[in-house]
Amino acid sequence: MPFERITLVGTGLIGASVGLALREKGFAGTIIGWDNDPGQVKIALERGAITQAAAGKDAALQAAVGSDVIVLAVPVFGILDWMQQLAPLLKSGQLVTDVGSTKLQITQAGQQLFNQENKASFLPGHPMAGKESGGAAIAEASLFENAVWLFTPTKESAQADDSVIQGWREWVARFGCRTMDMDAARHDTLCAWVSHLPQMVSTALSSLLEDEFGDAPDMRAIGGRALREMTRLGSSPYSMWRDVALSNTAPLVDTLLALEQRLAHIRENLKTPELREEFDKANHFRKSR
Amino acid sequence: MPFERITLVGTGLIGASVGLALREKGFAGTIIGWDNDPGQVKIALERGAITQAAAGKDAALQAAVGSDVIVLAVPVFGILDWMQQLAPLLKSGQLVTDVGSTKLQITQAGQQLFNQENKASFLPGHPMAGKESGGAAIAEASLFENAVWLFTPTKESAQADDSVIQGWREWVARFGCRTMDMDAARHDTLCAWVSHLPQMVSTALSSLLEDEFGDAPDMRAIGGRALREMTRLGSSPYSMWRDVALSNTAPLVDTLLALEQRLAHIRENLKTPELREEFDKANHFRKSR
Repeated sequence: MPFERITLVGTGLIGASVGLALREKGFAGTIIGWDNDPGQVKIALERGAITQAAAGKDAALQAAVGSDVIVLAVPVFGILDWMQQLAPLLKSGQLVTDVGSTKLQITQAGQQLFNQENKASFLPGHPMAGKESGGAAIAEASLFENAVWLFTPTKESAQADDSVIQGWREWVARFGCRTMDMDAARHDTLCAWVSHLPQMVSTALSSLLEDEFGDAPDMRAIGGRALREMTRLGSSPYSMWRDVALSNTAPLVDTLLALEQRLAHIRENLKTPELREEFDKANHFRKSR
Repeated sequence: MPFERITLVGTGLIGASVGLALREKGFAGTIIGWDNDPGQVKIALERGAITQAAAGKDAALQAAVGSDVIVLAVPVFGILDWMQQLAPLLKSGQLVTDVGSTKLQITQAGQQLFNQENKASFLPGHPMAGKESGGAAIAEASLFENAVWLFTPTKESAQADDSVIQGWREWVARFGCRTMDMDAARHDTLCAWVSHLPQMVSTALSSLLEDEFGDAPDMRAIGGRALREMTRLGSSPYSMWRDVALSNTAPLVDTLLALEQRLAHIRENLKTPELREEFDKANHFRKSR
């Protein structure tokens, strides 16, 4: 049975891009959208990412009750809140899935609240796609093309022969993604290294330069591609990262501490052969990519 | 009097790009090239970045003696060495200029060795252009277009009404550069912040990931644009950075220490409102760019 009604909870960059990708790839049913910011819902509707706007949060919950799939595309603690509210209202044969940046808490909550007899199914997901800022205005149907969309089901839910889960996986594949299943804790550790740490480094460097130089025109003039690239993620707003910092604190602390120590090692070895070893290792990392 | 003979000492990325830019912008004279690596001279000659190859170092010194302009495009300590060797051989009316990444030592040496009665002129320079790897094979005539080419003359040399210095400044402007004069010490401090620190951060992050993950396929699969950008400079070889680390050690130590402290501050405040302040400052830095 193909999906007929999908509710998007959150119509920012990722949520609205899911809506646009669904329609681009032939989804002909109803897409109901809700966002904490009514302006985002309006833009998503105007851009055709959703076919109906939910008038408010209660209307969104009612829409979810009548939907085949509910996609949670809000920050992590918003996702956890919606999971709590949806679980008692939904029933077997419905699917809740999410696009949250950290997966351990969400995956554990999914096992407690869903994936049981007479309960809706839950599939934790995370598309590795995004931009340094958010919003429905910059959503794209092609955002997920050639990206990896990770799923972190537990063994129980992965092995379930669940047609709504399979149905959603097929839609994600149609978006042009490569999908990969991964343990939720491993996901959070890896993402701390390849996504959350790079973000914090770029924020730290940008913030430090702001304190040191402000708008000093000579600094602005001479900064080239290296500076632009290394500070691009500094544009990302706190609102996009607060829940990552709160929900993936321990792995992020480990990676930050490791980088601080590595920078100190380089600082102490600017005039010794150890510096060459750091460059050689870095070269090797890049060559094998 | 227009320049007729130019010697390029170093025909890697920057030196060969200078040669290509000169010819693209109408320089019709002779360009003699030398490099420590004969393979680079061969490529520079084949690509038309130079019109003659110097057979060896002695031949390059002789070519310099007969040249209007000598461009030193080797690493910083190579530049200092060539300055020592050229000073007693050259005479008034000739110009030595360089493209070294750090400027304080070179500018001081220039005042001691050149810019005096019966001595050649010296103009310390630094084009803010480059790539993460080097070599004549990837040189481009357009490398300097829209880049800033910094000069760090002392007051004495800046005020000199010196036609060879003016002549070289005009060529640099023809390359499509914006030129800017700056105090040499200020140059080295600014470059530590906007170029050398970003390089060391990218090297540190790449080297750390190499140690943590090596070729782990799941890490490779999920890293996206953020990881690619933040580690791109990790491809830069030690040979391009050794002399920067050695000749700009104190400013680089200061910047590394400041960033280590900033990262520690973020690490200690992942769950406090201080994190928002760091993001807000970083956002402001990026907005004013």
